[in-house]
Amino acid sequence: MPYVNIKITREGATSEQKATLIKGVTDLLETVLNKNPATTFVVIDEVEMEHWGIGGLPVEEYRRKIGTKP
Amino acid sequence: MPYVNIKITREGATSEQKATLIKGVTDLLETVLNKNPATTFVVIDEVEMEHWGIGGLPVEEYRRKIGTKP
Amino acid sequence: MPYVNIKITREGATSEQKATLIKGVTDLLETVLNKNPATTFVVIDEVEMEHWGIGGLPVEEYRRKIGTKP
Amino acid sequence: MPYVNIKITREGATSEQKATLIKGVTDLLETVLNKNPATTFVVIDEVEMEHWGIGGLPVEEYRRKIGTKP
Amino acid sequence: MPYVNIKITREGATSEQKATLIKGVTDLLETVLNKNPATTFVVIDEVEMEHWGIGGLPVEEYRRKIGTKP
Amino acid sequence: MPYVNIKITREGATSEQKATLIKGVTDLLETVLNKNPATTFVVIDEVEMEHWGIGGLPVEEYRRKIGTKP
Repeated sequence: MPYVNIKITREGATSEQKATLIKGVTDLLETVLNKNPATTFVVIDEVEMEHWGIGGLPVEEYRRKIGTKP
Repeated sequence: MPYVNIKITREGATSEQKATLIKGVTDLLETVLNKNPATTFVVIDEVEMEHWGIGGLPVEEYRRKIGTKP
Repeated sequence: MPYVNIKITREGATSEQKATLIKGVTDLLETVLNKNPATTFVVIDEVEMEHWGIGGLPVEEYRRKIGTKP
Repeated sequence: MPYVNIKITREGATSEQKATLIKGVTDLLETVLNKNPATTFVVIDEVEMEHWGIGGLPVEEYRRKIGTKP
Repeated sequence: MPYVNIKITREGATSEQKATLIKGVTDLLETVLNKNPATTFVVIDEVEMEHWGIGGLPVEEYRRKIGTKP
Repeated sequence: MPYVNIKITREGATSEQKATLIKGVTDLLETVLNKNPATTFVVIDEVEMEHWGIGGLPVEEYRRKIGTKP
């Protein structure tokens, strides 16, 4: 009965992409640990860009400075 | 000084219901473990339906397929 | 299908007390929001005393200074 | 720069299985959302059986009663 | 590679204040534990007032009753 | 009444260092947002090295491969 929380920055993930994440993580837990999908929860949080910090900066500033992928 | 986080799907819980959850959990911790309500935090997260997965599906699809209660 | 996380300091809660918390929170969610117990998860974390801070101090120091209940 | 937290009951997952979960979730986020593995964190929590409740019961009691897979 | 989650009530923190929190926490972890800022994540959650309970009450009611600072 | 959760890998942080983190984060929240230390919680989680993934690998493997600071 796993519980999985996925936090990503809010920048346009579609409903289809979110459903693919839910399916993928649930399948992974069944394949690797034989966990029952019926009691596997996946909760996605989309976090505002200004609420996510990395390198001591809000993520948009950090990306401008460093030039990384999301 | 407990900290309690309650995650539910966003589907119309009222302010009164949320206040009842806060009161109920706080009372429970005082009754069972003698925890001081003044340092008991309860944080409720309402999660968008498409952000909650169970059985490998977003919850609305899962309910249509299985016919469960929330 | 709620998910509840209860964090308390590790100071001797018994298995019976933990089971009472699980039962109490699950019942509360069924009573207040009609949530199905079969898809209600409750996860308890016992946190080491030196890992819990309040008032800018580890909790044991804080209690010595202030004289509060847990 | 996603952050993923996987909570499972502590019942013998091996280091290899945990590494497979880390790899699988990281790959999934890169495939579905083009997230950079170098800034994808995966944190696994193994939760004691008596700390995980479902159906209003600690999970071992629940399984005995219902007969579900983990 | 620390992960820090800061939960505050939603009551008007500015983008500048949030950036100051991100910078401050990241610096603290580098100073105290020599953690690399490039792999230090800080995620801020602003929680609706009616979703935060203390003393068994939603926080606004509690403040009216007790008269505390945020 | 903020709640802060700090997750770090378990690799020898001392009680003094943890107390310094608690003090530092609490002071930061008071300075930046005028939050009351008496209702500021800081919870530290030390995560086993094999439970923390980055770059699709458990952190120790990742460090060997990349040669980063913690």
